[in-house]
This record gives sequence, C-alpha cells and structure tokens, in this order.
Amino acid sequence: MKSIENKTTTLSKEADYLRALYQGWGERMTANPNMTIEDLRSLFDEWEKPTLEPEDVTYKTDTVGGVDVLWAFPIGCDKSKVLIYTHGGGFAVGSSSSHRKLAGHMAKALGVSTVVLDYRRAPENPFPAQLEDAASVYQALLASGIKAKDIGTIGDSAGGNLAVASVLKFRELGLELPGFVIAFSPWLDMELTGSTLETNADTDVFINAPLLQGMINMFIGEDGSKVRNPLANPLHADFKDFPPLYINAGGAEVLLDDARRLQARATKAGVQATLSVVDGMQHVFPFLAGRAPEADEEIRRIADWYKAL
Amino acid sequence: MKSIENKTTTLSKEADYLRALYQGWGERMTANPNMTIEDLRSLFDEWEKPTLEPEDVTYKTDTVGGVDVLWAFPIGCDKSKVLIYTHGGGFAVGSSSSHRKLAGHMAKALGVSTVVLDYRRAPENPFPAQLEDAASVYQALLASGIKAKDIGTIGDSAGGNLAVASVLKFRELGLELPGFVIAFSPWLDMELTGSTLETNADTDVFINAPLLQGMINMFIGEDGSKVRNPLANPLHADFKDFPPLYINAGGAEVLLDDARRLQARATKAGVQATLSVVDGMQHVFPFLAGRAPEADEEIRRIADWYKAL
Repeated sequence: MKSIENKTTTLSKEADYLRALYQGWGERMTANPNMTIEDLRSLFDEWEKPTLEPEDVTYKTDTVGGVDVLWAFPIGCDKSKVLIYTHGGGFAVGSSSSHRKLAGHMAKALGVSTVVLDYRRAPENPFPAQLEDAASVYQALLASGIKAKDIGTIGDSAGGNLAVASVLKFRELGLELPGFVIAFSPWLDMELTGSTLETNADTDVFINAPLLQGMINMFIGEDGSKVRNPLANPLHADFKDFPPLYINAGGAEVLLDDARRLQARATKAGVQATLSVVDGMQHVFPFLAGRAPEADEEIRRIADWYKAL
Repeated sequence: MKSIENKTTTLSKEADYLRALYQGWGERMTANPNMTIEDLRSLFDEWEKPTLEPEDVTYKTDTVGGVDVLWAFPIGCDKSKVLIYTHGGGFAVGSSSSHRKLAGHMAKALGVSTVVLDYRRAPENPFPAQLEDAASVYQALLASGIKAKDIGTIGDSAGGNLAVASVLKFRELGLELPGFVIAFSPWLDMELTGSTLETNADTDVFINAPLLQGMINMFIGEDGSKVRNPLANPLHADFKDFPPLYINAGGAEVLLDDARRLQARATKAGVQATLSVVDGMQHVFPFLAGRAPEADEEIRRIADWYKAL
C-alpha cells in the first residue's frame, strides 16, 4: 500500500479552469432544472474543454465486440498493448468525445493504444449494461490475440467504478484478468456514506449527494436493492487476485473517501494498490492534461508506476 | 463557371443521420426557447457527431497570430501548405471541437495541414472581429514563411461567408491573396432575399429565416446599416482578382440560393467558380464525412478540383 500525498502550497492558475467549468455547469443546471438527458449530455461533453490536444496521436472510429468505440493511437505506440477506457459521467452522460483527449494523453504517456468505449448509458440502459459492454470489448480483444496481461482498464468517476467493476465481471466470467487497473476519482459508493461527502462539501464545487443520488436512480433504480451489489458498488467487492491498482483523487473533492476506501479494501485483500491525492484539486483533475502542471505531473507518476509493474 | 448537379435517386441511409440531428436540435430549441448562448454552444458542438474520425490525422492546440487555433496534421502532409478553416455556426456558435474531424478530413483529402480558428464569436464580439482574427492568422502564416499561393481559406455556413470575406479583407489590407477558397453551404445574404428560403422551406429541416435573423442581429446588430456591407454580405462584393472558388450546397437547403448567387457573381467578375449541388442533402452535408457516401464523394470532387488548380 503506497499513498502519495501531493501537497501543494498554491494551485496553478491553469488548474482553476476545471473549477470554473464545474461551477458554470452547476449554475446552468440550477438555472434550468428541467434539462433533459440530451441537454445534460451536451453539457457534459464540454468535459473535453480543459484538456489540450495530445500531439502525435491519431484516432479511429470503430466497433469492437459490437460496442461503439474510439481508438487513440499515439504514433509509434505498441498496438499489442491496450488500455480499455470507460469514461465518467454518472453512467448516464459523458462519451468518447468528452474523453478523447484525456484518453489520448494516457495512451501517449504509457505508449500503448487506447480504446474508449461508448458503452450503453443509463437511464435507457441501466446496470449492468455497461459491464456487459466492457466484457464484450475485453473478450473481443482477447480473441484478436491481445494478451490479458497487456490490457489495462482505466476510467474516471463512474468510469473509474466501471474500470474496477469490469475486472470483477471478467473474473465472474472466468476470464484471465487484465494486467492493471487505473481509476481517476472513482465513484464507487452507491450508499453515499463517504465521510468526505460532508467534510469536503465546501471545497468540491461540482459533485454533491443529490446529484449522485439522481445518477444512482438512473443506474440501479430507486428501490435500493442493488446499492451493495459488488458489481455496482465495488466497495463491497472481494479483491482477491485483483491486478495492481492505481487510484487518484483531488484533495478538494467529496469523492475522496471513495478512493481511500478502495485502496484500503484492495490492500487488505493483498492487492498492490497505490493512491495519489493531489491537494486542492477538483474531481477528475487529469482532465487538465496539457494545460495544468498538476495533471501533467500526475500522468507522469502513473507512467512511472506502469513502467515499474 | 462549372456547375455540378449531383442527382441522386435515393439518399444513403447514413445521410439521414444529419437530418435527424438537425431535427432533434430544432425540437430541443423549440422545447426550450430560453436557451442561453452557452447552452446553444453546447448544442451546436454536437455538430461533430455526424463525422467519423479521419484516420492518420494528429492535432495540436496552439495560438497563431494571437488567435486560439486547432491544427490538424495528416501524417505525411505537406506542412508548407495550409488550409485556414473558419467554422460555421452563425458567427456565434460552433468551434474547433465541432469542426475538428471535418477539418481533418479536408486536410487529409488535400494532403495539407489545416488550422481551425477559434475566432471571437458574436454576440460578445460582433462583426468584424471574426475577419480581424482571420487576418491575424493569415498574416502570421505569411510571416512564418508560408507562401500566399499555398494557403487556402475554407469554411461552412457562416464560416463559408468568413472564408470568402476574409479574402476580401486581405485584399483591403493590401496582402497577397491565398491560392483558393472553398465554401460549404455558405451563408452570405444578410438581407434574407434568397429564393430558396421559401422554395426549400419544406425540405430544409434546420435553417429558416427567423433563426438567420437572430444570428444577423448578434453579428451585425439590429439597425440594418451593415446588411449590404460586402465584408458582412459578400453577395455585394467586388470579386475582381479573387482566387479560384469551390462552392457546394445541399439541394434540400434554404441557403442553396446563396451558393448559386455567389457562383454567379464571382463568375461575372472572371473568377473560376465551381458549384456542386448534391440533390436532397441538408445544410453542410460534408459533416457526414466518413459516414455517408454523399459526403465522401463530395470531398473527393474537391480534392480533384484542388489538384487540378
């Protein structure tokens, strides 16, 4: 169990871009409480804005295992190695468009190809459609000759949940497990019991319990029967034989406790679990890749971790 | 004067994607008539959806001449040749995000680099801020050693207007003119006198006079003093010594007559002006690049035209 506490005295000016974006979203959602799911998807696709283009990366629209995907190929990358990227957005919003550049930065930092899944989203397609799509892609990659150990799952927020839960699903299916898992600001707790939901309520400008509850209702329904299902809430999962895990979170966010509890539970099961917390940062701060040093330094730490596996 | 009338008996199934997108936008704008300019910008950034990723193209976030831009570099392209892409969206919406993939397809088809301008948008920055930004970029490219003849301006809708008007602006500034101009479904007429505004009102699912009038008000104000300014409305411009011009439009759109009148006026001034009209297609149908054969065939025609210059 390795924890990296990245203390910063002052945040970079550039890091404020993400905070301002989130604050603007909050104001727009408050001003227009009747936004449709389509409107919310447009809004959240603005998540691409904080990220500058990673240079020397090409893209391809494709389907893998019947799932719509976007490939990111850094020039000269090792195409025998693949990151499976499950985007965030409460299982309901976000897309390969919002996450293209971030996925491209990760692909480039690790020197591998990356496939961003446009998995079926809630509420039209509730749990476990997302995990079924991830499993379809994983099985198709294995069938194409990619080795399990050369695949990593990665995701942010709800997609960080999926990056973890899809590996639990692969295990349930009896598949050989991927080589590693990376989760940015994972949202795992469908019971909303994390201590930082309260203690960081004043510093997180975006995520709050009512927002999360709305997404829970779309993802697993309102009857509460699935809130402790390990595939929906990996804080209740058995992490036996789970691959090495890198987790990060911003120090300012209400979901920080989800990251901490994931590390603690995985470590207890014997998993090599690294947690990096960057003081003062908001939810999924790697979205600032190319713009703010806090994100670029974090991505370098992940690349170092990956190379040492 | 060359006119290509591309008659199709039936549209491809894939071409319907753009019609459906536009129809959905119309319904959402009707359902929510109080959308803010920020909400409209989110909505119009969905313009990227019809376009599939052009493969083997890389991107770079940059500033040129003080203007925020996105570069598209097809692998192996001739970087001594540059397309200046001014995106559409009524001078007020649209961005390098909505037009990235379309610009990438054009860059690839022509084998050149492309710079997509995030010019200042109305209403915060009315006419002629957009032309000033285009001129800043053009002058910076010339200063960097790129030859005028190796630069082309290109744009769609309001950005097609800018692709034409910026060349008129360059001429006013006494600059050597670019080698060519490409305009997709250009919107030029600030007086709204085109015959197809009425005759195609039933087939165009998206553009209509009230929508255009709202954008005119944001772009040049409500007093009507600028509606015949040639730099805002190139249908009133002198096209003497204007570079070779390629114009296209969909046969179903209300702005078809703007394309026809541009060709007629340029031709009368001795300009080599080609017009390609594809029967049944909606506004800026090249957005269907990679998805629908009508768009891919049109882009091939443009590449052939470019190579023959």
